[in-house]
Amino acid sequence: MPAIRTGESLGVASRHGTWSERMHDLDDERAIRRLMARYCHTVDDGAWAEVAVLWADDAELALRGETAIGPAAIVKLIASRQTPELRGLHVIANAIIEVEGDSARAVSDFFFMRREGGPDPLVKFIGRYLDRFVRAPDGWRFRRREIHFRGSS
Amino acid sequence: MPAIRTGESLGVASRHGTWSERMHDLDDERAIRRLMARYCHTVDDGAWAEVAVLWADDAELALRGETAIGPAAIVKLIASRQTPELRGLHVIANAIIEVEGDSARAVSDFFFMRREGGPDPLVKFIGRYLDRFVRAPDGWRFRRREIHFRGSS
Amino acid sequence: MPAIRTGESLGVASRHGTWSERMHDLDDERAIRRLMARYCHTVDDGAWAEVAVLWADDAELALRGETAIGPAAIVKLIASRQTPELRGLHVIANAIIEVEGDSARAVSDFFFMRREGGPDPLVKFIGRYLDRFVRAPDGWRFRRREIHFRGSS
Repeated sequence: MPAIRTGESLGVASRHGTWSERMHDLDDERAIRRLMARYCHTVDDGAWAEVAVLWADDAELALRGETAIGPAAIVKLIASRQTPELRGLHVIANAIIEVEGDSARAVSDFFFMRREGGPDPLVKFIGRYLDRFVRAPDGWRFRRREIHFRGSS
Repeated sequence: MPAIRTGESLGVASRHGTWSERMHDLDDERAIRRLMARYCHTVDDGAWAEVAVLWADDAELALRGETAIGPAAIVKLIASRQTPELRGLHVIANAIIEVEGDSARAVSDFFFMRREGGPDPLVKFIGRYLDRFVRAPDGWRFRRREIHFRGSS
Repeated sequence: MPAIRTGESLGVASRHGTWSERMHDLDDERAIRRLMARYCHTVDDGAWAEVAVLWADDAELALRGETAIGPAAIVKLIASRQTPELRGLHVIANAIIEVEGDSARAVSDFFFMRREGGPDPLVKFIGRYLDRFVRAPDGWRFRRREIHFRGSS
């Protein structure tokens, strides 16, 4: 896998700003972390109506050279790859989230496990998510997700 | 697996309330996240006395049709399934935590890996935790954990 | 694996202190969580210059009876075990972080997956990180990381 990095600065310093600004920042990061978890839960449940509302109207999902635009197309793309017999557990880990005003971005690692014929679940995919988020009136939404798979798969 | 969802609203908005309320909320969520991590560490260490203190006196653990009530019975149930040769690593991921006053709930995904005969650790179980928590005078405790395994296992 | 525990008290209570203190504490924990994620990203990318800056000048990395001291030696040790063909995905989970002034410590679980010859990624290592951190003028750094592998590997 080519090095996929955020290009941002180290980002390990504590934040500056007023209490109010810092509180907002912590709150926003929590909301985005929750949105990322919600993606996993709803995709793994095949709850497509709930997946759809996670995305901004002009959101993009890019994977393996394809880009779906808008919630309906995005759900269609995901659902085509997550038919009931192919479903399992998506896990997001090592997330680093940067909020800037009404937009945000994140880099995180993911992996996907599912049961196939054998006795034990298998790890099927590992990779990295590069995400952009946008603040909507009622909460944060995905603006763009790029899925980078690690290795041949 | 049937869709296991919290039934809560989307939950991706930033929080409202006074600074004090929001600070409490962030603090509580952190304490609960830590409690969930502590469960993994202590179970994987077979540190049963430390597992016991994670639970409220009237706590319930429900898995595979069994329900243990109270810390002693809960530890007994866990220990019976986590004998030394069966131990490994529990991981909690994708946690969404909702605090309401002195109680809270969470939905999260989990998986469990361990070494068996072969060279590499194997993923043995994947599933979802549905948790309820209660605030005790000295901190948060599990009030109820339901363990839902994904697929036949 | 022998029980590896932090020795700290239960740590599931909400925090005390003034708003300012608690805000600092939440901020610091977030910065450290981000540092831990950054370790995974940069090691998995083989981005050794970026790995180096994560460590204090007198930092220590201890694994399998070896201890490397200082960023250059630490990177050399990691790079020797993470040659391009051996790379994969490091995941940190179940992290419990304790901040005390300008130092902090954490206990967390980790696992490492990679592709080898077969069709699916394999879990190769599972274990626990015992970490110490120090606050530098521009942010938190690793002061010491002990890597404890679980089982024979």
